Amino acid sequence: MTEKTQPIPRGPTDHNVRTQIVEAAAEHFSRYGYEKTTVSDLAKAIGFSKAYIYKFFDSKQAIGEVICTNCLNAILEAINEAMLGAPTASERFRRMFKAAVEASVHLFFHDRKLYDIAASAAGEQWQAVAAYQDQVKQFILQIIREGRETGEFERKTPMDETTNAIYLVMRPYMNPLLLQHNLSLADEVPVILSGLILRSLAP
Amino acid sequence: MTEKTQPIPRGPTDHNVRTQIVEAAAEHFSRYGYEKTTVSDLAKAIGFSKAYIYKFFDSKQAIGEVICTNCLNAILEAINEAMLGAPTASERFRRMFKAAVEASVHLFFHDRKLYDIAASAAGEQWQAVAAYQDQVKQFILQIIREGRETGEFERKTPMDETTNAIYLVMRPYMNPLLLQHNLSLADEVPVILSGLILRSLAP
Repeated sequence: MTEKTQPIPRGPTDHNVRTQIVEAAAEHFSRYGYEKTTVSDLAKAIGFSKAYIYKFFDSKQAIGEVICTNCLNAILEAINEAMLGAPTASERFRRMFKAAVEASVHLFFHDRKLYDIAASAAGEQWQAVAAYQDQVKQFILQIIREGRETGEFERKTPMDETTNAIYLVMRPYMNPLLLQHNLSLADEVPVILSGLILRSLAP
Repeated sequence: MTEKTQPIPRGPTDHNVRTQIVEAAAEHFSRYGYEKTTVSDLAKAIGFSKAYIYKFFDSKQAIGEVICTNCLNAILEAINEAMLGAPTASERFRRMFKAAVEASVHLFFHDRKLYDIAASAAGEQWQAVAAYQDQVKQFILQIIREGRETGEFERKTPMDETTNAIYLVMRPYMNPLLLQHNLSLADEVPVILSGLILRSLAP
């Protein structure tokens, strides 16, 4: 009953202000670049005081981390969706690799300035990047486990060795700093390297 | 007999002048960077006229190509030497990958400014780079052929598909533009990825 008697807040909730700052910052970074923008620039552009922004975020990087997490989560969702309904572990792997590269190309390079944040994040190994890498390794691990259970894949090599090696093969086509030099290969590579990786997994 | 009567040239031969220009240019580039240096800068530093340099080289890139070829040849020699006497095709492959990464790290990053030329060469796909890549693919092809003949490797996958896929796995640890972001992994990666590649080659 107490809930009913509480007044509806008139001003924006903290959650809304955070979202508002993040959205405005993403827009601003994508126009002027992440590295070049200061929190002062951002405050001026959004129409908030610098002190007000610091009430919600400790630093520019803290805002960048949220934007980066949103971007990386979109890639993870694209991978998840692509894997749905795959009839075999091999096919699931092929779809994962293809979707990961496609979504990375789209999100980092379609809007070139999002590349800016992603490159800073990858170069400085932000928390958002570490969480993302862990999740990609989880996807790989799950597929290997599935393939070992169904007898599609070999079972001799230690799981973590296989997972890590496969992740290393995929990394140059997902990490934005590396992917920028691999864009011309982005269509064909997932097919060729999935072939090699699946041969390495054969029982 | 005619050879004996020819006078020994007093001035430098064309060949010597070329070498002299290349050596002085390599020294100059390594100190001031390749991109920032013009042929005029180079002429001033060497003490030749710009016109005299143009008698021997069409452009700055033509000088850079020679420096780059020398550098890439040194990597190929290091690979060749490492492979000598390997008892099996698998072992030859492991040694090749390890030596390729070690020599690349040493030559591109030991002297940071040689990275400058190598990065321009890789980014603009100079002739020297294309020749080098062909040679690395030849090494891979020879090892696969050897392993197929001795029964160490499988024989089903088309040779060019296997060669190309393996080259793509090695490339991020040899191409200077990619390797700069992979330096912290340069020790462990050849071992991990050789393992994966050799599993993919298993009969």
